[in-house]
Amino acid sequence: MGFKELIDFSKARSDYLNIMHPLGRFEFIGISDSVGRILANDIKTQFPLPYFNKALMDGYAVKSADTFGAGIETPKLLKIVGSIEIGVNSKIKLGAGEAIRIATGAMLPDGADAVVKIEDTEPVENNEKIKVFKPVSPGGNVMHVGEDYPAGRVVLSSGHQVTPQDVGLLANLGYKKLRVATKPRIAIFTTGNELMSLEDFTEQEMGNINHADLAPGKILDSNRYLIQALVEWGGGLVADVKHLKDDVDLIKDTLDSAISSVDIMIFSGGTSVGEKDMMPVVIHQYHQVIHHGIAIRPGSATLLGRTKVQGKPILCVSGFPVAAEVAMLSFGVPAIRKLMGASILDPRVIVPARLGRAVPSKGFGIRRMLRVKLTWDNSGPGELPVADPVKLSGSSAQRSIVESDGFVTIPENCEGYEAGTIVNVRIHPH
Amino acid sequence: MGFKELIDFSKARSDYLNIMHPLGRFEFIGISDSVGRILANDIKTQFPLPYFNKALMDGYAVKSADTFGAGIETPKLLKIVGSIEIGVNSKIKLGAGEAIRIATGAMLPDGADAVVKIEDTEPVENNEKIKVFKPVSPGGNVMHVGEDYPAGRVVLSSGHQVTPQDVGLLANLGYKKLRVATKPRIAIFTTGNELMSLEDFTEQEMGNINHADLAPGKILDSNRYLIQALVEWGGGLVADVKHLKDDVDLIKDTLDSAISSVDIMIFSGGTSVGEKDMMPVVIHQYHQVIHHGIAIRPGSATLLGRTKVQGKPILCVSGFPVAAEVAMLSFGVPAIRKLMGASILDPRVIVPARLGRAVPSKGFGIRRMLRVKLTWDNSGPGELPVADPVKLSGSSAQRSIVESDGFVTIPENCEGYEAGTIVNVRIHPH
Repeated sequence: MGFKELIDFSKARSDYLNIMHPLGRFEFIGISDSVGRILANDIKTQFPLPYFNKALMDGYAVKSADTFGAGIETPKLLKIVGSIEIGVNSKIKLGAGEAIRIATGAMLPDGADAVVKIEDTEPVENNEKIKVFKPVSPGGNVMHVGEDYPAGRVVLSSGHQVTPQDVGLLANLGYKKLRVATKPRIAIFTTGNELMSLEDFTEQEMGNINHADLAPGKILDSNRYLIQALVEWGGGLVADVKHLKDDVDLIKDTLDSAISSVDIMIFSGGTSVGEKDMMPVVIHQYHQVIHHGIAIRPGSATLLGRTKVQGKPILCVSGFPVAAEVAMLSFGVPAIRKLMGASILDPRVIVPARLGRAVPSKGFGIRRMLRVKLTWDNSGPGELPVADPVKLSGSSAQRSIVESDGFVTIPENCEGYEAGTIVNVRIHPH
Repeated sequence: MGFKELIDFSKARSDYLNIMHPLGRFEFIGISDSVGRILANDIKTQFPLPYFNKALMDGYAVKSADTFGAGIETPKLLKIVGSIEIGVNSKIKLGAGEAIRIATGAMLPDGADAVVKIEDTEPVENNEKIKVFKPVSPGGNVMHVGEDYPAGRVVLSSGHQVTPQDVGLLANLGYKKLRVATKPRIAIFTTGNELMSLEDFTEQEMGNINHADLAPGKILDSNRYLIQALVEWGGGLVADVKHLKDDVDLIKDTLDSAISSVDIMIFSGGTSVGEKDMMPVVIHQYHQVIHHGIAIRPGSATLLGRTKVQGKPILCVSGFPVAAEVAMLSFGVPAIRKLMGASILDPRVIVPARLGRAVPSKGFGIRRMLRVKLTWDNSGPGELPVADPVKLSGSSAQRSIVESDGFVTIPENCEGYEAGTIVNVRIHPH
């Protein structure tokens, strides 16, 4: 590796996240635009739900006491004094011995305390009265004010990420707008003399690159796009993107001039300990290295740092795409979410699965990220999906993440897993 | 229920999806904007990856035959004739008995067929020559042209939904733009005289509704926002949203005038078989009912239809939020995705879990959607999360989806599940 010592992953992650705090910046947005955003404060009910007593059945609003003792042989006779449709503010008042026809969802009239179901009644005397064949208890078939939610109840907490389901509830609670965390501003700088930028190619019919356009020895800068997509997936705003040559002064100057306008700086490439690796040089010399060399594979060359002035987080990820992905998901995305005050820093879904084959032990002390593909043998209950480690033909790490569904963490102290072991798969961003 | 007969869920779903076909509309977009979009064609490699032979180690490019027989006691002596850095188009040609210093990732020079690792060599004679202590086989430590992907290989298929990881690969393959399915245009019409629209309230400081603003007997129209969020989550574009009073002519005219400008029409409310339920009346009388009354709970009042002219899909969902959610996830989202040619019609993630308590049998012949909350007892291997059915206090179905993580399907023929049974949880859109 070239690193004298690798820092424990969990320590590195918590030391890094501990240098940062929620930005406390927020904006008001309409609920229609709020899916995926992080709430900046608790959402409380502004009024009780429901805010009026509501019939839960089609039938008759009654005083329950008037139905006590009712039976098939001993029906109670009540006088029909009106009817209430859904959506109407009922102003009829129910007296003793009276019944009011009511629809499911309609507002219970004053004086009534229960709804007797239509099927427990029979109209008589030209629909002027009903016979009630079954008693109803006080409150029967009525949903009372605040039964769903009383007023002032917290229904969604600060730091929660809004879902489509939440949007429906928020509308029901009378929220048109929400206060959400502003998206942190992220700068992405890819370094490396060997990189060609897609942006430098002239537009063709579909804008794509032909074989003839490629400069032998160089490679296309793909990390810029991978990191950008992961930043956006994590909730960040890409405020600046540049490709930089391997030049200490250029890197230093670019970093310094970005500090005041962004919240996190992400660099790709040049993070290892070789003579062409400029990032450790720049950060050591002009800013602060928190950790460099982390006990996780891929991703061990990751550098975690912060700027000398303003203490803003710096993340330097490897130029190798899978190592960059691991570093982004382990440090970059959690950092973005911490700055937004999100309560969940790693939003990936976890799916338990059975390992399709044994995973042998490899060097203790290093956490490994195994790429696996999931197969569902059987969609019925009682079956877990099978997680097969993705075979790397050649050394294309990038192919291995595109062709896998997620990562399985093999902990530092693990001697490997037997085939069939139940493991947790963290599903790739999608 | 009021339905004479309920149609089997799977039959209803396939009959409905069979009336529709991919729209065949597409657009070109930059890869940075492509996450979540559906590919309109297969993506092939435009050139082999890598497109030049590449050193996999720091060391010396050599003719492997020159190293055969090398050993600690019998080193081979090679003459250093140059060096190749990463990113450079090497024009040096390697002759017999020669070695060229090369960096990981750099282009292998003509004449070389292997790389001998730096640690298996020792410079001698003022760095003019090296001793090689270990033989390297032909192709050793070299990644050959096309070893990752040959040219013309399909790497992502038509109908695939683009992920952040894909974006990295696409950049590497020289794609700046992609052809993706255009988002289907969806109209959302909520019906019901009892609904108040959030839009009708004057803007206040935060735009939210106070208790005093509420009209007793009425409820806020939340389905409009829920359905809109689910349409967008599924990949559709909300092209029209309106609230309609319960008026057959108004509903008919609105539907007729939307036909030519949208791809799917979704109605909420009035789908059951009561006298105030207008949707079955309108669709029966002027268009075509495919199925009305489906053996799924919640969601049984769903109506699946299509327009008389142009045969466009109509989906009528219940006004009850959870029933609307089930219908959207079972029919609405799959319809949107089928129109885009997506290969996966239901994109929810499935998480296996152990039921926290027994789920009793309730009426055969009807598929049930159980709302569950997941708890991870232990993040280590060998443990499944526990899925606890969400208790409904009162009858707030909406609360039950916000407070749950997903649905467990209880099939039509199931007699219930024991506590501890492994079930599949379909995670709510998030």
